Amino acid sequence: MTTVDLNSDLGESFGAYTIGNDEQVLSFISSANVACGYHAGDHNVMMKTVKEAKQQGVSIGAHPGYQDLAGFGRRAMNVSPEEVFNLVTYQIGALKGAAAAQGAWVHHVKPHGALYNTAAKDSKVAEAIAAAVKAVDAELVLYGLAGSELVKAGEAAGLTVAQEVFADRTYQPDGSLTPRTEANAMIHDADIAVDRVIRMIKEQKVEAVDGRDITIQADTICVHGDEPEALHFVQKLRERILQEDIRIERVGANEHV
Amino acid sequence: MTTVDLNSDLGESFGAYTIGNDEQVLSFISSANVACGYHAGDHNVMMKTVKEAKQQGVSIGAHPGYQDLAGFGRRAMNVSPEEVFNLVTYQIGALKGAAAAQGAWVHHVKPHGALYNTAAKDSKVAEAIAAAVKAVDAELVLYGLAGSELVKAGEAAGLTVAQEVFADRTYQPDGSLTPRTEANAMIHDADIAVDRVIRMIKEQKVEAVDGRDITIQADTICVHGDEPEALHFVQKLRERILQEDIRIERVGANEHV
Amino acid sequence: MTTVDLNSDLGESFGAYTIGNDEQVLSFISSANVACGYHAGDHNVMMKTVKEAKQQGVSIGAHPGYQDLAGFGRRAMNVSPEEVFNLVTYQIGALKGAAAAQGAWVHHVKPHGALYNTAAKDSKVAEAIAAAVKAVDAELVLYGLAGSELVKAGEAAGLTVAQEVFADRTYQPDGSLTPRTEANAMIHDADIAVDRVIRMIKEQKVEAVDGRDITIQADTICVHGDEPEALHFVQKLRERILQEDIRIERVGANEHV
Amino acid sequence: MTTVDLNSDLGESFGAYTIGNDEQVLSFISSANVACGYHAGDHNVMMKTVKEAKQQGVSIGAHPGYQDLAGFGRRAMNVSPEEVFNLVTYQIGALKGAAAAQGAWVHHVKPHGALYNTAAKDSKVAEAIAAAVKAVDAELVLYGLAGSELVKAGEAAGLTVAQEVFADRTYQPDGSLTPRTEANAMIHDADIAVDRVIRMIKEQKVEAVDGRDITIQADTICVHGDEPEALHFVQKLRERILQEDIRIERVGANEHV
Repeated sequence: MTTVDLNSDLGESFGAYTIGNDEQVLSFISSANVACGYHAGDHNVMMKTVKEAKQQGVSIGAHPGYQDLAGFGRRAMNVSPEEVFNLVTYQIGALKGAAAAQGAWVHHVKPHGALYNTAAKDSKVAEAIAAAVKAVDAELVLYGLAGSELVKAGEAAGLTVAQEVFADRTYQPDGSLTPRTEANAMIHDADIAVDRVIRMIKEQKVEAVDGRDITIQADTICVHGDEPEALHFVQKLRERILQEDIRIERVGANEHV
Repeated sequence: MTTVDLNSDLGESFGAYTIGNDEQVLSFISSANVACGYHAGDHNVMMKTVKEAKQQGVSIGAHPGYQDLAGFGRRAMNVSPEEVFNLVTYQIGALKGAAAAQGAWVHHVKPHGALYNTAAKDSKVAEAIAAAVKAVDAELVLYGLAGSELVKAGEAAGLTVAQEVFADRTYQPDGSLTPRTEANAMIHDADIAVDRVIRMIKEQKVEAVDGRDITIQADTICVHGDEPEALHFVQKLRERILQEDIRIERVGANEHV
Repeated sequence: MTTVDLNSDLGESFGAYTIGNDEQVLSFISSANVACGYHAGDHNVMMKTVKEAKQQGVSIGAHPGYQDLAGFGRRAMNVSPEEVFNLVTYQIGALKGAAAAQGAWVHHVKPHGALYNTAAKDSKVAEAIAAAVKAVDAELVLYGLAGSELVKAGEAAGLTVAQEVFADRTYQPDGSLTPRTEANAMIHDADIAVDRVIRMIKEQKVEAVDGRDITIQADTICVHGDEPEALHFVQKLRERILQEDIRIERVGANEHV
Repeated sequence: MTTVDLNSDLGESFGAYTIGNDEQVLSFISSANVACGYHAGDHNVMMKTVKEAKQQGVSIGAHPGYQDLAGFGRRAMNVSPEEVFNLVTYQIGALKGAAAAQGAWVHHVKPHGALYNTAAKDSKVAEAIAAAVKAVDAELVLYGLAGSELVKAGEAAGLTVAQEVFADRTYQPDGSLTPRTEANAMIHDADIAVDRVIRMIKEQKVEAVDGRDITIQADTICVHGDEPEALHFVQKLRERILQEDIRIERVGANEHV
């Protein structure tokens, strides 16, 4: 049976500040990427998110980012691969601490924001992340942009890799995402977005901006829940996936022992 | 054979800032308490410290503190026991990440500064720390001030506990440390300090400020290495301990499997 | 003519995180206390808030707090009076930078959260704050809890002082606020709260929790706008004040030269 | 009479962490660039540094940097010009607060590290800094790399500008500094370095790495004091400058009113 994973970035609240509707989003997804206190989240939010994800049977993943709370980890920073290795192990470890305290386990790692984008193109940073994941726990699944350097680095390191696609973004002929600065970067029509996702899952194909099909592997789909509209889209996407007899489940389906 | 542990706070450098002579201190001690990025240290320093400690055969411990880099974790803060639980699990986990990446393991947990002091007197905070240690890894040894609430909480939780004594501090009749604000808080004569330590190890006794002996259990002695003088003292103390046929080794002597 | 000031804490958003409805609140108040980046706010939010306050003719004040973003400045911290002096000058200065860049000026200083509470009772901290305000700009108006140590310290330093009252809180016989931990700390009935405020303004009296009247000076009233309900209350209070022929304006009414 | 300014980055200690020998360096220089708490320094260190600089008659300047304490402001970050404007006004303002509290005044602004380097080449960032300086206080002198975009932006904004040269660095034919990654980036011979500085001051010329002379304006020389060797070099340079009958004084020599 065809399966796909739905993942979302959660646990991004911080201290007195709230972002997202984590509780609602958890009812729609199979994998939660939990902020680890560097670009968002804190030890309290992390613990709460791990607890809720476990209760709802959602896989827990580390979502490490640059140490830039003011910029929400979205700003490119000149961080050496060696330091990337260190900050990724730190953040995975911190989440593992919270998971252990809740009798839960960490299933995957997905870099956040600027670190994710850099890892998609910079093979040194990609290799540092893959090495860090492997060094901390070789069973962890590494999430990366479909076809990116991070996916390649993960595979080269022998990790289970989840190739990620975006429902609301257009693709370049080389398989990269159209930069958000471009006019045609986003897909605003929810029906079209859903159709594209279904095709990516079933046919491993998506139409690039030049009108030609490219091959793409959609192991996991990134969804958002911070806006009411986004939440409706997730619901719609989820229903359609189930109608198509595709099972929604985490990548690497075996239970953790 | 009588044994005692020598522990020291290491890995307190941060970014461009250096504190301590970690490499030298490591050659004298049996256990290193590694700062976890909240009151001091960062992911780079932590990784380096774990690596060096492993190389020198020194046990690695987490040294969690309040999230107060500006105050080096020395300032009392009104943090709830629930949050203490969360910040301790986070910091232990982060160090475990670094340890895993180095093929090393985490042996113990010693709270830092204001958190250590609060945990010595406040049973709720002490219990939160003990519960966090147990929840993350019940094999971890909990370090606390000899006779303190933290020691009691650790024992009540079923943890292996290391009772810590201070060579350069005087004790009150109730076994608590004389506050640093008092004139007679510190012992400045190195020979007297060494003699007191030896007696604490061998006889489980120390003379309190009122001249009467109190009972004290000295499983581990806290030493410092940030000043040249401190380093000389550690060396002197170490030599004397060995002369007395006391073995210097970590608490809970079995190898990690 | 009787006058009163309505003040509110604004500019508390941070990076990607939003708190409050600053734009709406600004239309109801005469003075804005702008977070200065220590407990909340950042340089971008501060600049935007200064600009909006200036546009709406609302007085701009510094709202310095402890350096505790994770705790929103609400946690008691053991900070020396000397350091309080330094952190208050820093934060006032930072806001003055933003104000200068917008052709605006800083009118007042109101400490935030735990710093405000400590300054109400601890004369050393109160004096440090008053000295800092005076040292940076002796024309600044110092806001403090009515009858508190901070008000006394400000007056002793020769500063113009604004005594602050709270519409939704009950008072102890000694004029202090009933701690929030007490069952009767809050006034939930909006009409009663408004009546009490009007009486404080007109008669300088409020009924304490023991049923007896105490004398209180209400130069400024603290209002909130982060919840829809709170915003309705401000509107209601504002209308009632105007009906009573009380003018709403900042403390120290002269224009800045 | 020919004059030149000697400037140094000071006040870079933070909390329990010490960097530099500020007190000694202050006796050799005419201008101090004081860290403002973003990349280094804190409110306590800043206040102390302002006090000492004033005592020694050294001009006080703001040294704003990126908000990156972990990276000491040395890491390139993708920060928008609009945000650069805001973070520069914030940091200048904060220092002005400390200066006012000490009866001192702020004389100049020199961006730090990665912000300095970006401002040397990126005209948008350079203009944002110049605009921020002008907006906060048009009397402030703007320090920038000799011949850089920052110098041009400062002049275009009508600010007094100080062109800065480096004694221990080599120059490219286009007047830019040879990147530190190049083998010939540094000048290790102190005598040669001093000779080059004297020639830059007297002849406005320096030999570039290709052997040809380029024109350079040396209003101010950056010196360091964190290493004993560096301190010796400053002393040597200072003596030689005085021997050459060049006066060491701040840029824009008039007293502040």
